[in-house]
Amino acid sequence: MYQSFEAASVGPANGERVKALQRELKARKLRGFLVPHSDEHQSEFVPPAAERLAWLTGFTGSAGVAVVLDRAAALFVDGRYTLQARAQTDPELFEVLQTPEAKPSAWLAGKVPKGAVVGYDPALHTIREIQRLTETLGKSGIKLEPVEEGNLIDGLWSERPKASTVPVVLHPVERAGKSAQEKIEAVQAVLKEEKADAVLVTLLDSVAWLFNIRGGDIKHTPVALAFAVVPATGRPTLYIDPAKLAPNIRRRLEEYVEIAEIAAVDERLKTLGRARARLRLDPETTAIRFARAFESAGGKFAAGADPCIAAKAIKNEAEIEGARTAHLRDGVAMTRFLAWLDEVGSTGKVDEVAAALKLEGFRRESGQLKDISFDTISAFGPNGAIVHHRPTYAAKETLKSGSLYLIDSGGQYLDGTTDVTRTVAIGAPSAEMRRHYGLVLKAHIAVATARFPKGTRGQDLDPFARRPLWEAGLDFDHGTGHGVGSYLAVHEGPQRLSRLGTPELEPGMILSNEPGLYFEGLYGIRLENLVLVAPLAAVPGGTREMMGFETLTLVPFDRRLIDPKQLLPWELAWLNDYHARVRREIEPVLLSDDRAWLRHATAPIG
Amino acid sequence: MYQSFEAASVGPANGERVKALQRELKARKLRGFLVPHSDEHQSEFVPPAAERLAWLTGFTGSAGVAVVLDRAAALFVDGRYTLQARAQTDPELFEVLQTPEAKPSAWLAGKVPKGAVVGYDPALHTIREIQRLTETLGKSGIKLEPVEEGNLIDGLWSERPKASTVPVVLHPVERAGKSAQEKIEAVQAVLKEEKADAVLVTLLDSVAWLFNIRGGDIKHTPVALAFAVVPATGRPTLYIDPAKLAPNIRRRLEEYVEIAEIAAVDERLKTLGRARARLRLDPETTAIRFARAFESAGGKFAAGADPCIAAKAIKNEAEIEGARTAHLRDGVAMTRFLAWLDEVGSTGKVDEVAAALKLEGFRRESGQLKDISFDTISAFGPNGAIVHHRPTYAAKETLKSGSLYLIDSGGQYLDGTTDVTRTVAIGAPSAEMRRHYGLVLKAHIAVATARFPKGTRGQDLDPFARRPLWEAGLDFDHGTGHGVGSYLAVHEGPQRLSRLGTPELEPGMILSNEPGLYFEGLYGIRLENLVLVAPLAAVPGGTREMMGFETLTLVPFDRRLIDPKQLLPWELAWLNDYHARVRREIEPVLLSDDRAWLRHATAPIG
Repeated sequence: MYQSFEAASVGPANGERVKALQRELKARKLRGFLVPHSDEHQSEFVPPAAERLAWLTGFTGSAGVAVVLDRAAALFVDGRYTLQARAQTDPELFEVLQTPEAKPSAWLAGKVPKGAVVGYDPALHTIREIQRLTETLGKSGIKLEPVEEGNLIDGLWSERPKASTVPVVLHPVERAGKSAQEKIEAVQAVLKEEKADAVLVTLLDSVAWLFNIRGGDIKHTPVALAFAVVPATGRPTLYIDPAKLAPNIRRRLEEYVEIAEIAAVDERLKTLGRARARLRLDPETTAIRFARAFESAGGKFAAGADPCIAAKAIKNEAEIEGARTAHLRDGVAMTRFLAWLDEVGSTGKVDEVAAALKLEGFRRESGQLKDISFDTISAFGPNGAIVHHRPTYAAKETLKSGSLYLIDSGGQYLDGTTDVTRTVAIGAPSAEMRRHYGLVLKAHIAVATARFPKGTRGQDLDPFARRPLWEAGLDFDHGTGHGVGSYLAVHEGPQRLSRLGTPELEPGMILSNEPGLYFEGLYGIRLENLVLVAPLAAVPGGTREMMGFETLTLVPFDRRLIDPKQLLPWELAWLNDYHARVRREIEPVLLSDDRAWLRHATAPIG
Repeated sequence: MYQSFEAASVGPANGERVKALQRELKARKLRGFLVPHSDEHQSEFVPPAAERLAWLTGFTGSAGVAVVLDRAAALFVDGRYTLQARAQTDPELFEVLQTPEAKPSAWLAGKVPKGAVVGYDPALHTIREIQRLTETLGKSGIKLEPVEEGNLIDGLWSERPKASTVPVVLHPVERAGKSAQEKIEAVQAVLKEEKADAVLVTLLDSVAWLFNIRGGDIKHTPVALAFAVVPATGRPTLYIDPAKLAPNIRRRLEEYVEIAEIAAVDERLKTLGRARARLRLDPETTAIRFARAFESAGGKFAAGADPCIAAKAIKNEAEIEGARTAHLRDGVAMTRFLAWLDEVGSTGKVDEVAAALKLEGFRRESGQLKDISFDTISAFGPNGAIVHHRPTYAAKETLKSGSLYLIDSGGQYLDGTTDVTRTVAIGAPSAEMRRHYGLVLKAHIAVATARFPKGTRGQDLDPFARRPLWEAGLDFDHGTGHGVGSYLAVHEGPQRLSRLGTPELEPGMILSNEPGLYFEGLYGIRLENLVLVAPLAAVPGGTREMMGFETLTLVPFDRRLIDPKQLLPWELAWLNDYHARVRREIEPVLLSDDRAWLRHATAPIG
């Protein structure tokens, strides 16, 4: 299950597919239908059988929604995906519109008359999403109606991939740091505190975290398709395809968990509804289908966040130690890769795919790689300006002197998930490239060195990354960082460093620090390390307790792109300290050729 | 109407007052009653007749709410006011609790049984406030019930002050920059755009801004008690006590406005309700009484912000020019004051009240002062650590060598409202004082020099002020800045520099930049200038349009407290540039003695 560089499969007959869906709509007296990217678990990456949006439109990005009407259709994607969506879809079939400027509700209001009914699959949209959409569409007199009897696409999709049956494994408690029983008790304590009788958990990484299980149903994220119901007292139930549970795994799980078929979750919700149980549902992450099943039986749910989310975000000592070890191992692979790249990068013999495969090879040679943590972004020159560029065999650039190469990649190890980006000069860089690289490095250091009190939110630190860029009249259009799981999802909430980062940062959280600059048609620069939120020693004369970041990633920055005169003394000190640490930790584990490269790469600058 | 330094009047018989209120509750079968600080217009500063909270409790702060039950009572205030509230109230009568940690709803839930009914005056609480409180109290089975027939306190308050009848004046269009007709048309354009038939305006500064009128009903804020209804087409109505309108003013207003008695607003809402008009109400600023009157007649209101708020926040060219002129005039008064203080500050002959009066005198000598813009905060030594310290004749410190003096004050001029804070060494400052002053100066400069793109919110800049303090293990517990009106409220929304500053900054907005540090029992330091958001010239090589701040305030910083070695070169450059500008602009307007002082105060440092 490593990276495939085949071009994304774009169905050959999308026009027919859209027409077939439109016939379905007519038969059901629906004016329109929503086809989102999300699956039943609101996953960012979905299994092949849930790629309904790609099947219908050809668009393979990780977020978006199509709205299909009787005689028109539109695909709504965010700014990351506008170009890709236009390239992958047929403009005769789909108008591509960029959110949040364009909104499905406003588009619908302009296209369908009052009284029209638009259908949706209640398994694929969250409670909050449907609440909001019902309200806005209601203002235009448009009605939103759930289509309960299965997704309309699934009925038309003749070669829909089969569901995966990759076996589930137990995540060892030495890695997890806490037993499943302890985690279940902690969740039950939250339920008791909030006077809830039970909670339904639908996020795949929440289920995997809670029961210390890992699976292989989603590419690069070690989770299994499953749901869970945790009662305030008594044993929780794991709803999962039993074919994925080997007898010994099942026996172990059954020591503290009931096992049930996925389909049984609806009946369970109805039972809870009939019993008027106080069921907690997370309106932001739970499909409205579940709220409907529960409420149809007479229940009234209590809105509250999935209690696993906050607990999972704060890594325990075992997970933190694991993250450090995983990053040391990953740093060795990255160092070997950068040394190799220095030798061959400007020979004209290396392309974006070959480079990504080479790096994956170095990671595999650790003997510990379970998977890469996401499809590698390997981008030379102008491709670097496409934030999420992924090369294919069919469309790949060859590296050559005179521009920059950006590689954003990570590994899934039993002890941790990594995610690192470096930008490297191929041949001699221009003064402008060095100036731009220096600005991104300043942005990165501004976050790495931040010291902040309790109560600080990710959105309070995001501006530190932007200030050096703003001073130069520049900026980047993505967040500065996202949360990262522990041998789980490489994008994990709730913490994030961005305009939207409202959750408070707490010791034990892991985040990426990845500011960038992108120059269309020229190159892109992004510098990413993972950081751990940690308490800091008291500052003499200080009156507040402070936290800061411990950088986990151990990979040199390209010294050819660094002009020490551009850095302030404390910025240069941070860089030289970091490089000294990289050398100290990585060198002992390297073979001799790479040692020489590392010594040069991490020698003091300025 | 200048500053009074009499001690706030604390009624002698609060126990009797509480008992009288409790008898009222019993007679009305209410378990409790809410007594907020706010008036019918949700003003921060209220007229004497609306000081119901002070009458009942003795507490004179600008925010808080008392909850009175049959046998218990609590006063809820925020962190600024905890100490003051404890000092001003009788602990036998009121438990003082600090929000947001303590909440009236949670306190009530612990004190009264399910089914209990708690009353409130619907004229004093906003729609949103009552919605939220109804929901939270509902969870504990407590019912919230409006008391419609007048405020219960008013019936008990035998010597309730009479309403002011200060005449209304027209604000000249040369100062306002736009005629009332233009403003009304702009508001009507918003209403048409949003398909609303009318809007009710209840904020006093919105009404004053919209009709270009000024009044004298609130201390230090030149507004008149009034409401307005603006229909999408046709003439708006101003609801006001006609005794405040001289015949010539009334004639001028009646060219474009209908005039009606305040009491007529309810009947108007009922008429609109019966006509099923789409009435826009701002749930955050409008008392729920109005929503109830409208809905009782069959209307259903449309929630939307008071359209004056956003329009008023963006100052036009005349207001901006006015602000510059007002700040030059105010800077002269502050300079004269600081020169005087240098002479007499350590003689032991000046106290906090005398200093504030002296400054007020310098402002009056401009011949242009309409009022001060708020009660002067004049605080020596430990009093400086109390963010809102206001001296009285009865309780005032004398300035003497060895500590710091903080003065936060402002003026109301026809062309603008000012607000400035300086902290000054009395005698020779210690190294620690200088270090702390330097940190606050760095914080101030970090905001003053910020450059930022469209879309930046106040909360994105607030961390820049805090970073230098966080690095020293320090912080301050208030926002970095608030919006300021144009010869209107010294605290004006929606813009603000704080954790809560979600509105985007736009050219023409005026804000304060006032970081601080407070050391209990020792001293406080705050450095405040007003700044104007302005577009910036393009940065060479930049790709984004940027904005920045033009500093309006023109007053030297105390050089005795500045250690140039503590500042970075660009920070020192900003300071010296600023001082050079202060000298260039202020010196020509000063008398000769003060000129020598200013030349020394603004000479280059470092």
